[in-house]
Amino acid sequence: MTIKIGILGYGNLGRGVECAIKHNPDMELAAVFTRRDPEDVHILTENVPVYPAAEAIDRKDDIDVLILCGGSATDLPKQTPEYAKYFNVVDSFDTHARIPEHFEAVDKAAGESGHTGLISAGWDPGMFSLSRMYANAVLPGGHDYTFWGRGVSQGHSDAIRRIDGVKDARQYTIPVESALEAVRSGSDPELTTRQKHTRECFVVAEEGADLARIEKEIVTMPNYFADYDTTVHFISQEELNRDHRGIPHGGFVIRTGKTGWNDENSHVIEYSLKLDSNPEFTASVIVAYARAVYRLNQEGQKGCKTVFDIAPAYLSPESGEELRKYLL
Amino acid sequence: MTIKIGILGYGNLGRGVECAIKHNPDMELAAVFTRRDPEDVHILTENVPVYPAAEAIDRKDDIDVLILCGGSATDLPKQTPEYAKYFNVVDSFDTHARIPEHFEAVDKAAGESGHTGLISAGWDPGMFSLSRMYANAVLPGGHDYTFWGRGVSQGHSDAIRRIDGVKDARQYTIPVESALEAVRSGSDPELTTRQKHTRECFVVAEEGADLARIEKEIVTMPNYFADYDTTVHFISQEELNRDHRGIPHGGFVIRTGKTGWNDENSHVIEYSLKLDSNPEFTASVIVAYARAVYRLNQEGQKGCKTVFDIAPAYLSPESGEELRKYLL
Repeated sequence: MTIKIGILGYGNLGRGVECAIKHNPDMELAAVFTRRDPEDVHILTENVPVYPAAEAIDRKDDIDVLILCGGSATDLPKQTPEYAKYFNVVDSFDTHARIPEHFEAVDKAAGESGHTGLISAGWDPGMFSLSRMYANAVLPGGHDYTFWGRGVSQGHSDAIRRIDGVKDARQYTIPVESALEAVRSGSDPELTTRQKHTRECFVVAEEGADLARIEKEIVTMPNYFADYDTTVHFISQEELNRDHRGIPHGGFVIRTGKTGWNDENSHVIEYSLKLDSNPEFTASVIVAYARAVYRLNQEGQKGCKTVFDIAPAYLSPESGEELRKYLL
Repeated sequence: MTIKIGILGYGNLGRGVECAIKHNPDMELAAVFTRRDPEDVHILTENVPVYPAAEAIDRKDDIDVLILCGGSATDLPKQTPEYAKYFNVVDSFDTHARIPEHFEAVDKAAGESGHTGLISAGWDPGMFSLSRMYANAVLPGGHDYTFWGRGVSQGHSDAIRRIDGVKDARQYTIPVESALEAVRSGSDPELTTRQKHTRECFVVAEEGADLARIEKEIVTMPNYFADYDTTVHFISQEELNRDHRGIPHGGFVIRTGKTGWNDENSHVIEYSLKLDSNPEFTASVIVAYARAVYRLNQEGQKGCKTVFDIAPAYLSPESGEELRKYLL
């Protein structure tokens, strides 16, 4: 018996979930739900239906876990609590500051309906959060550092595209190597925003646009670029399409701390990711947690969970016996 | 109310546990039990009693969790199941091949007595196992690599000390940088024992000993050194005491894997530790899991657990609300 997954929203993340299901033989894609015209949505899996989002609830009995692949700004705060009334749900809600209220809303809906929900699966929040949490528990009184990149920031790329005279753009966030080294040395540096990351922009300008003005608008843009050392490269649309099509990302979570009666020994815990495809990796984490959510619900555990609340063994298709034998 | 910890066995690991308790204000050291004469055991914490190991069971009502700090070869296979009849227990059993039988023995004893046991806490097994397990769940079909070091191997140091003419020795296991780089590149290399680690030995010879013979005996020793590129340095006892007194260790767990409909995207997940003190870090992990064991037992969960069976939130003194707010 396989775990039947539904996908709501078929963009990069939804397609990533579809690919991740292909890599997990104990799962199958049952249906895709879309707010677009289903006729216009061409999925990769053969013989799986695409339905209008409005029909999802009618098909709830065909689905063990519904994965919500919308955005955190406006989609998920509404969708996850709403669908938790009818489905076990997993989302990748990533607005860190609003996680507490999102958790409460999903917990209420899922608790009342007897379903299990998991919010904020992915890598940050997600795998990075786990690394922070384990490292904090093991080295109390230490220092945490998170660096992101080298990777594409969609939000920063969008901000550049909104500038007058810009046709297209791609922005990379890059951790500063010397800052990483300072952290790894255990010297507990205090790092400013500028010292931690640089930003590199590849911009396609419209014909005849004022490049100097565009560059100045980028590097002085508050919140997005003004606090960083930012480099701007003007390239052609062909170059952008050829060299910057991917959506790589990654980063580093480092915790340093002391042990010993007089704090005489130093330790460095480091977790890092180097990802060719941000949405596909995020989707891979989501799908592992969909397995856990299904099992927890089978055991009668209801309400909202996060990655902190789920024992690692629930993520794996292997038995406890096999895990102890081969991975412990 | 604090969690009252007992320590059985006061060597490097027991002392590390004592230091870790000092770093965790929700815990207190209740007693140390030793097989030596308690008069000869001088602990760091003031006003805490040291009792003969034989008296431990009489004092079971004073202790929430007993941490077993003996060795994996002969102590723990007997001690952990025996004491699980009377206490919640945590050990750092690290003979990977014998984990399944040790688990069964502890599970039976703890299950029958209504206690909770956790075996194989530490960093390998322990934090490294967690990294392997999460990464396997997220990237099915990938490749796992574990490298150890740079760090002191007690077993290999002991093996050198048993050679005729050797007064003292310290052996370091060192991962080969080019092998690490090959793994990180995602090329899925097949690595031999020799390609993964080198071994470096610092040896104090007895006066007039045949250094060439000692070196040859080391580098050709089956299982321990013959399969590695091994370097031998003869130094004085003073140099050994001055420069090689610490017990550093660490290592790297790396998993590489593919995602995408046609496996077109590669990902690298890496977890690493750089530890000044192997026993103190191991002890820090053990103490975090002692907190989890205490809580699970309070909830009525009995029997043997491993790090795979415990939701991360149980390790932290913070509430779920705080964890979601600050670490997710």
